[in-house]
This record gives sequence, C-alpha cells and structure tokens, in this order.
Amino acid sequence: MSGKQITFYTAAYSPFSERVRLALDEAGAKYTVHEFDKGRTKPEWYYQINPLGKIPALTYGGPDVPSDQPSPESAKLFESLPLLEFIAEIYPEAQLLPADPVLRTKARTFIQLYVNYVHDLFKGAFFLGQPAEPILQAIAELQQALAPTGFAVGQFSIADIAVAPFLMRMMLFLRVGLGAYSAEDGRKMRDALGSEKFARFARYIRDLHERPSIKDHWDEVGFVRLGTVLWLRYASW
Amino acid sequence: MSGKQITFYTAAYSPFSERVRLALDEAGAKYTVHEFDKGRTKPEWYYQINPLGKIPALTYGGPDVPSDQPSPESAKLFESLPLLEFIAEIYPEAQLLPADPVLRTKARTFIQLYVNYVHDLFKGAFFLGQPAEPILQAIAELQQALAPTGFAVGQFSIADIAVAPFLMRMMLFLRVGLGAYSAEDGRKMRDALGSEKFARFARYIRDLHERPSIKDHWDEVGFVRLGTVLWLRYASW
Repeated sequence: MSGKQITFYTAAYSPFSERVRLALDEAGAKYTVHEFDKGRTKPEWYYQINPLGKIPALTYGGPDVPSDQPSPESAKLFESLPLLEFIAEIYPEAQLLPADPVLRTKARTFIQLYVNYVHDLFKGAFFLGQPAEPILQAIAELQQALAPTGFAVGQFSIADIAVAPFLMRMMLFLRVGLGAYSAEDGRKMRDALGSEKFARFARYIRDLHERPSIKDHWDEVGFVRLGTVLWLRYASW
Repeated sequence: MSGKQITFYTAAYSPFSERVRLALDEAGAKYTVHEFDKGRTKPEWYYQINPLGKIPALTYGGPDVPSDQPSPESAKLFESLPLLEFIAEIYPEAQLLPADPVLRTKARTFIQLYVNYVHDLFKGAFFLGQPAEPILQAIAELQQALAPTGFAVGQFSIADIAVAPFLMRMMLFLRVGLGAYSAEDGRKMRDALGSEKFARFARYIRDLHERPSIKDHWDEVGFVRLGTVLWLRYASW
C-alpha cells in the first residue's frame, strides 16, 4: 500500500483512461480524479504533466496540491500500459501480475497480441469499413492465448485490465451494429463470435462483464453514444 | 542467474529479434540460437513455439533437446517487448530495469513513445513516402523524454534495448538516403537531426553506437542491403 498521493488525469469514456481507473480500483488505491472533457484542448498547465497533452496520466508523490496546480516535486507518469505496470508494482498485495516470471510474460504477451493484431484491425473496420474477416483470425489467435479457464492467464491481471475496455466496447458495437463495416460483415462477425469456435472467447467476455470493478462502471448507453460520435466524426470522410 | 535452458529463435537482421539478442547478451545469459532465414515460411514444428509463426521467441526450461524438437515441458514465450521484461526479471543482477518504480515507468513509457509515435511514421516515410515532417515532431517528443545525460533513463535499460535496433537503422537509412521519402524530405530530416535542436538525440544515438553489445554486432552493409530489399519489395507497389 503506497502512502504517496496519486492524482489521476482522465477523460470520460476514454478506454485508455479506463485501463488506469480499473487498475487503481482493483488495487484499492486512494486517488484524486481530474476529469477533462472528451476531445477538448488541454489547458497549458497540463503539459507539465504530459508534454503530449494526452490522458491518462498520474502524478505521484510530492505535496498535496490542487490537481490543476501540479507540484514540481511529484513524478509525472503517462501512457496507459506503463501505468498499469506501475500500479502493479506499487500495490504488490493486489497481485495485478502473477508472481511467476513465465506467467507474467504470458500476461504481457496477451496485451501485445491485442495491441499488435486486434486493435488496428477493429479500428479499421469500425471507422473505415475495412474487411472484417482478418479480425476474426486475430481474435482466434487471442483466444488461443487464453488460459483454459478464468481470465487471460487464469488469475485476474493487468492483461485483462489492458484489453477489457477495448474488447468489451468492440463486442457492444458489433452487437448493436455500430461501425463503418457493411451489414453483411457485421452479421458475419456476430455469427462467428457467437459460434462454438469462439466459445472460450465469449466466456472470457462474459467473465469480464461480471468483474465488479468493470460491472459497476459499465455504461452501455454512454459507450454507444460516444462511439456514434466518434464514428460520425472520423469515419464518414 | 537463471539455471534453466534458454533457446532463442531468431532471424538475421530482424530488429525485433535484435532486441532480445541484446537483452540476453547484456544479461550475460547462456543460450542456444536457432536462426531462420529471413522471410521464409516457418516449419510446422515452430508453431508449437509461437502459434503466429513469428520470431523472436524463447523456450525456457525443460530438458535439453534439439532446437527443432521443442519439449512440451519448456515454456514458450514470444513478442519482443514482453521478452525484454522476462529477461530483466530472470537476470535481476543485470539491472536491465532500474529499481525505482518511477524510473521503471519512465523506461517503459520511453518505449511506448517510440512504438506509438515514431515507429509507424518512419515506416510510412520509408516504405510509402509519407511526409517526413511529423517524424521530426515525434523525435522531438522522444528527445524530451530522454534523461539529461546517459541513456534513456540515465542507466542503460530495456528502454534503450527496445529502441536501439530501430532508431539506429532509421538514422543509417536517412544518412545513406535509403527510403521512399523524397530527396528534399530526406535532406530536411538530415539537416534537422544534425542541428542544435536535436543535439541531445544525436548524442543518444552516438552513445548507443558505443555500447559494446550493440557495437560488436553493428553491420552497416548488411542493414543497408536488407533495408534495400525490404524497400524494393514493399514500397514500390
């Protein structure tokens, strides 16, 4: 249990921020939240925290200060995946990573499989209507990496935290037919992901939905509303 | 010092594999090398090690077996970035990550800054002739994340190992003018990266060149030859 102050800079509905929120809550961390409006330009002071102006970010340690007046004495940390590792390290009792080095590697590899092979394909289908078939192949590979039961590596870990905000939105958007893919591609993906071949993956998504830290913040209407805004803004060029 | 067997599956000139080779050598690991021909289809047995058929991968532990007859008892690990974390964990005495959680996070964030903001931009310029200007902006942001002196976070770490094989090839290709970018874009990038504004970055690249584990395997002619093959194969669609 870390005694230092943590301030969490976030924006509503950001799946990247949601990763960090999940890790903090799973760790039982006490933290201050500073929430920005989605998509607004960040104020000048925020660039002291993240020179890229992106969320999520954390300040860690230093004196207690208002969140919009960050202290030079706090550590400024950003990029969601390193933040998950950070939270796992400063809250070891939360066991957000397994103790065994091989299992820890499998957790990190699971994240990479999502990031490197699934993420861009779904973005391409969602925003640009690129073919959906390769997504099914990538999800099949992700499914193959899942432990036989339980979460990605069995016990709940940062692997689940990293992918849940994205995979769960993806499944939701598919279910309601939101995205630039054709109606036929949508049907093909829904049929496939509902079939026996993807039973382990479907079970994984259901297990994520049951996790209290996820369930208590699941906001289907909000996700679909924001997903629609993003889709209209970027997809219909 | 890990007592278990390690077999390293690699291919000549792969920058992803080079990350893992560097980490193993920096850790003073003893390991068996199985090298595939660049770009050839992998043999059937290799899919037991990595279902994606990609290199790099490691087998860890289990009995001593020929590298093309992997034992069911060894752990099968793949994806280069998780492998760096794995090697840092099983060889703690090599200190491939700092001990301090804040510095560890900065090391991991440095990797993400490269992966998320520099990598694709350079690939786009190199293979497709996409505009080079944004690369300079991304490198400026990477430079801003560098410790004032020394390596990415001061001491040598997996941050340097993750980016060196890519940034050093990028600088080499720029120097010799290899890539799909226009001659003018190439000149603009060389001029900028040679200017005072990028002095810290240039120093970092020079420091990487001096690191024995890198220097002893630096093969300029080989890199340019393979870079040319890749460029001809993929860029001139």
